[in-house]
Amino acid sequence: MSAPQNDSFLLACRGARPARTPIWLMRQAGRYLPEYRAIRAKVSFEELCRSPELCAEVTLQPVDILGVDAAILFSDILVVLDALGVDVVFDPSPRIAAPVRSAADISRLRWGDPRQEVGYVMDAVRACKRALADRVPLIGFCGAPFTTLSYLVEGQTSREFEHIKGLIFREPALFGGLMESMTTLLIDYLRAQVEAGVDAVQIFDSWAGALGPADFRVHVLPHLRRLVEEVRGAGAPVILFVRGNANLLADAATIPADVIGIDWTIDLQAAIATVGPERVVQGNLDPMALLGPAALVERRAREIVAAGRAARAHIFNLGHGISRHTDPGIAKLLVDVVHDA
Amino acid sequence: MSAPQNDSFLLACRGARPARTPIWLMRQAGRYLPEYRAIRAKVSFEELCRSPELCAEVTLQPVDILGVDAAILFSDILVVLDALGVDVVFDPSPRIAAPVRSAADISRLRWGDPRQEVGYVMDAVRACKRALADRVPLIGFCGAPFTTLSYLVEGQTSREFEHIKGLIFREPALFGGLMESMTTLLIDYLRAQVEAGVDAVQIFDSWAGALGPADFRVHVLPHLRRLVEEVRGAGAPVILFVRGNANLLADAATIPADVIGIDWTIDLQAAIATVGPERVVQGNLDPMALLGPAALVERRAREIVAAGRAARAHIFNLGHGISRHTDPGIAKLLVDVVHDA
Repeated sequence: MSAPQNDSFLLACRGARPARTPIWLMRQAGRYLPEYRAIRAKVSFEELCRSPELCAEVTLQPVDILGVDAAILFSDILVVLDALGVDVVFDPSPRIAAPVRSAADISRLRWGDPRQEVGYVMDAVRACKRALADRVPLIGFCGAPFTTLSYLVEGQTSREFEHIKGLIFREPALFGGLMESMTTLLIDYLRAQVEAGVDAVQIFDSWAGALGPADFRVHVLPHLRRLVEEVRGAGAPVILFVRGNANLLADAATIPADVIGIDWTIDLQAAIATVGPERVVQGNLDPMALLGPAALVERRAREIVAAGRAARAHIFNLGHGISRHTDPGIAKLLVDVVHDA
Repeated sequence: MSAPQNDSFLLACRGARPARTPIWLMRQAGRYLPEYRAIRAKVSFEELCRSPELCAEVTLQPVDILGVDAAILFSDILVVLDALGVDVVFDPSPRIAAPVRSAADISRLRWGDPRQEVGYVMDAVRACKRALADRVPLIGFCGAPFTTLSYLVEGQTSREFEHIKGLIFREPALFGGLMESMTTLLIDYLRAQVEAGVDAVQIFDSWAGALGPADFRVHVLPHLRRLVEEVRGAGAPVILFVRGNANLLADAATIPADVIGIDWTIDLQAAIATVGPERVVQGNLDPMALLGPAALVERRAREIVAAGRAARAHIFNLGHGISRHTDPGIAKLLVDVVHDA
């Protein structure tokens, strides 16, 4: 493999300060782009996730249209559940017909090899790499163990997380065993992505903020640490994004991820003070700010770039996925402003 | 009006330390109680909210069953929208058929007098006070301006808050005017509750955590401050509960509310350090911990009571509403443990 021609994202991951602040956007291949909607008019979300060539096509769209400094594989954090023999439907938010809530449910899970069972993701990685032809690096990803399990246990996107938290509080050992197994699966899954060619990986702990700090430390952090440490051994930088409770940031930062993702619920300056100026941070514009006028987007982007200078290195991103209501022209403006700042 | 026989809650609101830590539970009159479900089998949620005698009956249930130190009026934060001529249906989460998103939508709102338009709430307050016969104090409440508007603008419980945040970022002056009007309405509404007899009020900013700290400071905090200050003038202590982003706590604590509510996403010790040891705090057991065994509930309750001693005074509560899956026996155990701690 040769190095990407635009290496600003990987330089920043490694702690250097490239000439321009690198930028990519969570969910950058998505519904706000007419070019993405044109493909989705032809295939379902599930079909798209399982079609390597189409994945590559939508993965590259924001590289071509916006000029971002990294591509992120088009996929979903829940396709890995194929390796457990669990069906997920997207309508459009994910639903699992038979949520896993008891020891008996858990015993019925088969822990297949993601290289085999989710092989289409690795095919998609290879298709993306071919299509990218080293223009920019490719980011792979997975959901964190808690976030992935929250879907498996709740059966859908949850607000209260009563089933998974009930499991934690009622049967902590059972929950711990499930986290252990899921972590091992995710290590294999991310390693397979790295072997297939991704240049970096991001771990999304989208729902860890449902837990208070004490429970996060006991029930989530050790598994997250093992995941990050074992995946780093595969050679690709790891971005850890724990969303939804900036109070967890100090604990999350004890994990030696190469990059700490910051959501929009904390000022970037405060986040850098929390994780320490020796760390690389990624973030953190409120995605809904892109619904505002160009002047607001430009001002906020410049503020975040300026705040990011206090960190060892800074990768610009949103604090959460881009909204489907975003004008692609405004997203392009954001990329240009960050490059120019 | 005579003073309640059990005045521990009001003593704590005023900054004193009663002999026993007072406790009440958010959503304590609710679906986890068979006695509540028996009434709901006969009337809809909407009918219940509009039936003063039935409101009083369910309001008193947790006082009788659990032995909590305060009753909270059974109602919903959205009934105040009756004063705007906006219909809300609960199925079971709230839905507004015609969300308010444009200047034209806003211009059609009528800002009626809550004393008239939501008079049934004040009737319910009087019915509760009669039924309580001064056993424990009665808490009234409202949603904060941002939270109330988030339903009005989104039309439902939201995850992304894209419509209200779009309004903030696109048309900040229009949004500010709407917040101003809503704040005035809520001041009148809470004053009317105090005049009808409530002994304290709680303001629920359940969704303020959707905003980053900078936006919270500019777009929410001044209105919340006016609401608290003007309602305090009516003579009842004010509990301010800003949920969902403990990063907002330092800013929220600049408002002179009598009591600062703390959700479960922060350690109580850290929360007290943030708001200052001279403040009265309320909170903050994760409601889902009540799904665990008695030993866990007892241990966590004692830890929180111990942490609360660092504050000027502490009212024990959950960090969010009690789950419908809670065993009432465990809720009763919690009350007993807190009283005994």
